[in-house]
Amino acid sequence: MKDDHIVFRGEVLDLLDQRLLPLEAKRLPCDNVESLIKAIKSMAVRGAPAIGVAAAYGCVLAAREAKDEADLERLLHDLENARPTAVNLSWAVRKMRALWQPGTPLEEAAQIFMAEAIAIHQADIEACRAIGRYGAELIDDGDCVLTHCNAGALATGGYGTALGVIRAAWEAGKKISVIADETRPLLQGARLTAWELRQLGIPVTIACDNACALVMGRGLAQKVVTGADRIAANGDTANKIGTCGVAILARHFDIPFYIAAPLSTIDPSLENGSQIPIESRQTDEVCAINGKRVAPEGVKALNFAFDVTPAALIAGIITERGVLRPPYGESISRIFKGVWK
Amino acid sequence: MKDDHIVFRGEVLDLLDQRLLPLEAKRLPCDNVESLIKAIKSMAVRGAPAIGVAAAYGCVLAAREAKDEADLERLLHDLENARPTAVNLSWAVRKMRALWQPGTPLEEAAQIFMAEAIAIHQADIEACRAIGRYGAELIDDGDCVLTHCNAGALATGGYGTALGVIRAAWEAGKKISVIADETRPLLQGARLTAWELRQLGIPVTIACDNACALVMGRGLAQKVVTGADRIAANGDTANKIGTCGVAILARHFDIPFYIAAPLSTIDPSLENGSQIPIESRQTDEVCAINGKRVAPEGVKALNFAFDVTPAALIAGIITERGVLRPPYGESISRIFKGVWK
Repeated sequence: MKDDHIVFRGEVLDLLDQRLLPLEAKRLPCDNVESLIKAIKSMAVRGAPAIGVAAAYGCVLAAREAKDEADLERLLHDLENARPTAVNLSWAVRKMRALWQPGTPLEEAAQIFMAEAIAIHQADIEACRAIGRYGAELIDDGDCVLTHCNAGALATGGYGTALGVIRAAWEAGKKISVIADETRPLLQGARLTAWELRQLGIPVTIACDNACALVMGRGLAQKVVTGADRIAANGDTANKIGTCGVAILARHFDIPFYIAAPLSTIDPSLENGSQIPIESRQTDEVCAINGKRVAPEGVKALNFAFDVTPAALIAGIITERGVLRPPYGESISRIFKGVWK
Repeated sequence: MKDDHIVFRGEVLDLLDQRLLPLEAKRLPCDNVESLIKAIKSMAVRGAPAIGVAAAYGCVLAAREAKDEADLERLLHDLENARPTAVNLSWAVRKMRALWQPGTPLEEAAQIFMAEAIAIHQADIEACRAIGRYGAELIDDGDCVLTHCNAGALATGGYGTALGVIRAAWEAGKKISVIADETRPLLQGARLTAWELRQLGIPVTIACDNACALVMGRGLAQKVVTGADRIAANGDTANKIGTCGVAILARHFDIPFYIAAPLSTIDPSLENGSQIPIESRQTDEVCAINGKRVAPEGVKALNFAFDVTPAALIAGIITERGVLRPPYGESISRIFKGVWK
């Protein structure tokens, strides 16, 4: 599988439009910050680490496009606030800002940003591979792994976090299979996770989100691994809506529930999950499917894009520096000791 | 709201085609058993008590259509086996069989069946109203009630079971609101429950099935009420896939979880839920939406139509003869004492 869903070519950040997968593999070229923000908001590019990588390249677009320093600052601010929950977005933009000195010519800033964006992108892929190596040890031969949403190559710089773990276990020769929650409303599981796993030759079956208790109760899944959009200092984890429910069911059925995420997804500035901002999206994403309304006219839907899984339900957080174990307050603070983030 | 979704007119059992709601309110006339079986299998008519009522009228079609007694027996057998999980289907057909003596002319049998079908239909509506009255007492003013799938007028002879409870509470002047799980794959919540409640003027918001933990965790729902497709002698309850997950989450968040169902849904011949046959349906119901494929070609989906909620998670089973409480083995056996079913 080619990891070319985020490519900077010439003047353009060229994205694979994830909204159209798996039916169409169409590219979405972004040649300015506004078009990238639109791509992020509309989820043409999605997944916390992937948004971070795209935003890093977006800073290059910003430096090239800005008329002056104030304009650059405005563009970076808008980019950073395109979506609220995934911390990788602001993490990437903040990394760029730290490299930029007022007075630096914008052209030079663009070059500095480009070098850093490439480094962030490469580091993210490396982090995913390391997550895969650590996580693969937790997966047993013969396991069926349940995952929610898409935390694959498409959701990252490449290789994937939760799917990186599954991929690394598979590459290590373990005969595993996957149940992919379809993940309403935007069906990232049915569309993207199934598409990635099929390309990799890893057996995958889709299940409606509401089949989770049946799957677990019948012993059809032995492990759960999902990605994350933001992890608080105590280990509470925001991820795609439905993740918390999966974690509660996993606890009920005594199945280990793991989070796989790079350190860039941890936000040590937040004490716990209640402080993570949760994006609420348009009601139409739920009430219409494939452009056709399913609900009666005038009826509204809740559409929170994420929920927060309490740390107490998480058996381990698989990072590029090893598997963090509870109590997460301690293991997270230990891993950040001496690491400037 | 008019309860005219199952009407026998002249020679025809005239059904409202529930697959097209809420966008279209088209009728589906069934003038023979085969067309009714097709309607049941394809879920043009669905909901355990509604299937029971439709099957009762289907026995009339069978008696009118049968060439001889053996043919009638074959038609009743096929009808009884149209779908496996809802016990009301076989319950209704068995009731008819008990009324029929070998040797009775088929024309006369058709008349006997018609009288009984009308009685079953009326009794079901009466049962729903009684369920509503008993259940309404469990709902407090200001409650938001979460429900899964559709257990409304459409799922019954009329008035509804779970929605009957909500409706009766509303009619008693309680200011309540409803969160309707959309209920994948066929979206009975988003399509049918929202449609019914909107007609009744009861405030309803749709939520994706996977939002349940967020809804409960944020205190957005105070009670859960769902219908049932079959209840074993110990209270274990088969209902639409996802119900068991909702019940586990309700227990986790300390929210009372109720089942509302007529006694015809209880199958005292089954000791516990593990004996309830669970229908597995086509993978395409999950992999394509509105006729358009969402999953990659070649990928399959789990599509069990029901799951079983253990009795231990059920705070009460609301029937037309009162609210059964745990231990259900005792309360169910007590309610059937002296009742020939």
